[in-house]
Amino acid sequence: MTGPRLLPLVGDPPPERRDAARNREALLVAAQALVEESGPEHVTMEAVAARAGVGKGTVFRRFESREGLMAALLDHSEAAFQGAVMTGPPPLGPGAEPMERLLAFGRSRLESTLRHHALIRAAGRAGSRSYAVWSFTAMHVRYLLEQLGVEGDLPLLTTALLAPLELPILEQQLIVDGFPVDRVVDGWADLVHRVVRTPDEPGEPGQPGQPG
Amino acid sequence: MTGPRLLPLVGDPPPERRDAARNREALLVAAQALVEESGPEHVTMEAVAARAGVGKGTVFRRFESREGLMAALLDHSEAAFQGAVMTGPPPLGPGAEPMERLLAFGRSRLESTLRHHALIRAAGRAGSRSYAVWSFTAMHVRYLLEQLGVEGDLPLLTTALLAPLELPILEQQLIVDGFPVDRVVDGWADLVHRVVRTPDEPGEPGQPGQPG
Repeated sequence: MTGPRLLPLVGDPPPERRDAARNREALLVAAQALVEESGPEHVTMEAVAARAGVGKGTVFRRFESREGLMAALLDHSEAAFQGAVMTGPPPLGPGAEPMERLLAFGRSRLESTLRHHALIRAAGRAGSRSYAVWSFTAMHVRYLLEQLGVEGDLPLLTTALLAPLELPILEQQLIVDGFPVDRVVDGWADLVHRVVRTPDEPGEPGQPGQPG
Repeated sequence: MTGPRLLPLVGDPPPERRDAARNREALLVAAQALVEESGPEHVTMEAVAARAGVGKGTVFRRFESREGLMAALLDHSEAAFQGAVMTGPPPLGPGAEPMERLLAFGRSRLESTLRHHALIRAAGRAGSRSYAVWSFTAMHVRYLLEQLGVEGDLPLLTTALLAPLELPILEQQLIVDGFPVDRVVDGWADLVHRVVRTPDEPGEPGQPGQPG
C-alpha cells in the first residue's frame, strides 16, 4: 500500500521549513546558554548570532527584537512546564490525588517563575502574561478544583489562586519583604486549603435546630 | 505672649514654598481636568501648561516627565482613597464591623483601580505598584484580618487578598474574559469568606471523642 508519496504528509514539513526549524532551535539553544552564563540582561543579538555561527541579520529575521528572542525562550520553557503537567510524573503530572497535584503545581509554578524572573522582565509585556500561558494554567487549576468538588465561581477562584503566583507579587514577597521561598510556598498551600474546604454551614449535614 | 515671630513655625512654609505648592496644585488640577476630558493618553505637558497658564518648562521642572505627572495625579487620588479608609464614613471608614469594612475596601479598591486604569498604565512602572500604596493597603487589610480573628500567616493571606485586585488581573477578568464588574466583586467577597472562616477541625470546639 505504500506507493510513492505524491503529497507531503501532515506534520511533514518541506525541507526549507525543516531547515528553518533547525536554525531557530540552534539560535534558541545558543541564547539559552548565554542567558545561563551571564543573565538575560547581558545577552545581545550579536552574541547570540556569534554563538550560533550565523549572521546577526538571521537572529533579527527570526525573532524581530531582543524582547522577541526572550519571549521565544520563555515559550520554550513554558512548553516544557506544560508537558510536565500533562504527561510528566506525579505529583505534578497525572496519577496523584487532585490536592497533591494542585500543591505540586503551585510550588513548581512559583519555582519556574523565579527561575525565569530576569527573562520574564527582559521579554517585557509580550512575555510576562501571554494569554496562552495564562489560559493553560487557568484551565489546569480549574480542572483540579472541579476534581476536588469545589463549588462556587470556579473561574474567579482559579484566578484568586493564580494571582499570588504572578511575578510582581512574588518580587514583593521575596525581594521587598524578604520572605524565604518556603514560607511563600507554605502560604500558597494554606490559601489553597482555605479556598477548597467546604464551608461549615451550621446545621449541615444534620437536621437544623435539633438539640443534643 | 504673642510677640513678633522671629522664626517660622513648624508647618508654616516660607512664602516661596507656599507659592510652589499652590503652583503644583494648579498644575495637578489642570492635568486632572484634561485627563477627565480626553483620557491620560491624550494629555501632553504643553496642554497642561497652557491650561494652568504657565510655561511648559514649569511643568517639566515640577514633574520631570509625563510619567511623573501621571504618577503625581495617582498619588493625589491615592491620598483621597487612604483618607476615606482612615477617617471617612463607614463601611469603608471606621465604625462598621471588620467584615463589612473588608468587603467595602475590596469593592472600593477595585472601582478605584478601574477608574484610574489608563492613568496607572500612563504612569508606567513608577505608578502602578508604588511601595507606599502597597504597604498602606496591606497594613489595612492585615489589620482587618486581625480584627476578624484570622489565624495563620497574615502577611501572606493579606497578599492573597490583594493580588486579585491588581490591574493586570482585573484587565484579564473584565476585558479579556469579559466578566461583569459585579461578578468580580462577588468573587472577591467569596474569596474573603473562604480565607476568613475558621477551619472546621473535627472535634472542635467541644471535647474530642465525646459522643452525642
